[in-house]
Amino acid sequence: MTELSDLQVIISNAVDQLSYPEYPGDLYEPISYILSIGGKRMRPALLLMACELFGGDINKAISPALAIEVFHNFTLMHDDIMDNAPLRRGKTTVHERWNKNVAILSGDVMLIEGYKLMMKVENHLLRQILDIFNDTAVGVCEGQQIDMEFETRSVVDIEEYINMIRLKTAVVLGGALKIGALIGGASQTDADLLNDFGVQLGIAFQLQDDILDVYGDPEKFGKQVGGDIISNKKTYLLIKALELAEGEQAIELNAYLSATNLDNTTKVAGITNIYNSLDIRHQSETAMQEYADKAFEALEKINLPEAHKQYLQNFADGLLVREN
Amino acid sequence: MTELSDLQVIISNAVDQLSYPEYPGDLYEPISYILSIGGKRMRPALLLMACELFGGDINKAISPALAIEVFHNFTLMHDDIMDNAPLRRGKTTVHERWNKNVAILSGDVMLIEGYKLMMKVENHLLRQILDIFNDTAVGVCEGQQIDMEFETRSVVDIEEYINMIRLKTAVVLGGALKIGALIGGASQTDADLLNDFGVQLGIAFQLQDDILDVYGDPEKFGKQVGGDIISNKKTYLLIKALELAEGEQAIELNAYLSATNLDNTTKVAGITNIYNSLDIRHQSETAMQEYADKAFEALEKINLPEAHKQYLQNFADGLLVREN
Repeated sequence: MTELSDLQVIISNAVDQLSYPEYPGDLYEPISYILSIGGKRMRPALLLMACELFGGDINKAISPALAIEVFHNFTLMHDDIMDNAPLRRGKTTVHERWNKNVAILSGDVMLIEGYKLMMKVENHLLRQILDIFNDTAVGVCEGQQIDMEFETRSVVDIEEYINMIRLKTAVVLGGALKIGALIGGASQTDADLLNDFGVQLGIAFQLQDDILDVYGDPEKFGKQVGGDIISNKKTYLLIKALELAEGEQAIELNAYLSATNLDNTTKVAGITNIYNSLDIRHQSETAMQEYADKAFEALEKINLPEAHKQYLQNFADGLLVREN
Repeated sequence: MTELSDLQVIISNAVDQLSYPEYPGDLYEPISYILSIGGKRMRPALLLMACELFGGDINKAISPALAIEVFHNFTLMHDDIMDNAPLRRGKTTVHERWNKNVAILSGDVMLIEGYKLMMKVENHLLRQILDIFNDTAVGVCEGQQIDMEFETRSVVDIEEYINMIRLKTAVVLGGALKIGALIGGASQTDADLLNDFGVQLGIAFQLQDDILDVYGDPEKFGKQVGGDIISNKKTYLLIKALELAEGEQAIELNAYLSATNLDNTTKVAGITNIYNSLDIRHQSETAMQEYADKAFEALEKINLPEAHKQYLQNFADGLLVREN
């Protein structure tokens, strides 16, 4: 099995080889620009990994893997417009560097270019793989829409939240793994199980992200602690706390959320205190573990040599850093 | 052969049958909304027509025809954001009725839904038809980008202009006809010729549109006379006039274009006067006729019964209303 880091390098090199027409420049330059900003290339690397796990030739999976990466960056380009984000991985976003119209239209072409890359599969797989790609793409758009709606809603329940992160984050991981598995020659059953593994793992990963925002070591995870708290983001932790807080504590929590002239340090400390007294960290970690367990249950059922399953298990363990 | 008007009714009914999930509402309602606003359904009707011309069953062409219509409306939804248009066919545009983010994301899903509909073709045609759809979609995006760039450029030449309208308007007509022909069982050669017929006809049609803006009967064509002149739109007529005007006339034309406090009637009358003295109408009609002739040359070569060619000829004649 090729190391994950080597798969990421293969993808990075393949991304560098992608070339687009020179004219019209404002349509194609933003594509090369956003792809050059980088990122961990995790989704396409997973696609290659799945292909290899089932004995496939990863060279046959590179174009579809690039399709997943181009698609992912299309969603970033459009999400950045919607979120009014000035920066993406430390670089100026496309709509800031060019303008919103350029980011809309360039993103549109990226989605089409994603289809073109995804079509570079053998004929007998074409329809099935495009069906998966369609479902994945629709899911991501639904997830983004639901996430935007959450911002303006006062109450969101846990089930709705899990559904949102499943759509916005997890289905792409599942879809990438399933497509790679099919190219590698997996049976329909195994491809579906690997899809399920990816989706459940993706949910666990997002829950971990929510936890680390509050309880992570800032040096280790490279993010500002409490960023989600400062922006009132409806994470698993906040939704759970709003569900559990009663009486004085509920009043206090809502006061923090509606305060307009509170300094960030006080707000982060105050809300973290409430989380602590409601045992939110433990409950979030339990939820995360539940989804990780579901992922491992799906993995267990896959018809693959133990060593290959161990490879996936190790990958998942690396993704889900446990601190307790 | 089914009458064009009947094909349009078939499409309208099929559009009414399209249904999308209820949740999330802000993602899917705008799709139903923009599709319900109507339009002539010309592109999908052409796809059905091409299928029938080659003896195909139009029922097999309805989903791909809907794909073309959904795709076309996706481009309208995004174009309206880019153009800051408040109205589309007299109705509030999606980004005005909801907001820009909704229009971006809902448009993205429409493009994916277009692919889903286009995939409802038989396996042996799937790759070829999706290749055509990809090329068409990329062409339209390129055309839109080039059109936006023209707004900020001082000089555009005729060749660039023809290329822009070919991409933005004509390739979809060609693509729709080609896809319909292939579903109907046309040979590759005939499908390519019909594509060429559609592209050339589309260019002629757009040139006619440019001419009618200035010389059309407002009662007959339902548009404000001189709308393009008022907005300094770089049409075939203006580009040609800028190319031909010399000395005093060039100074006068540029004065009209840069005037900021001129009433519209004076501006339209003044620029029309310049067009008249430069014989712009005649030259534009000659260019339009050249592209119409190219369309008819392609049509002539198609291996179809004369009666079927006559049907296409009549369709083209109906599209290109001649006034002189």
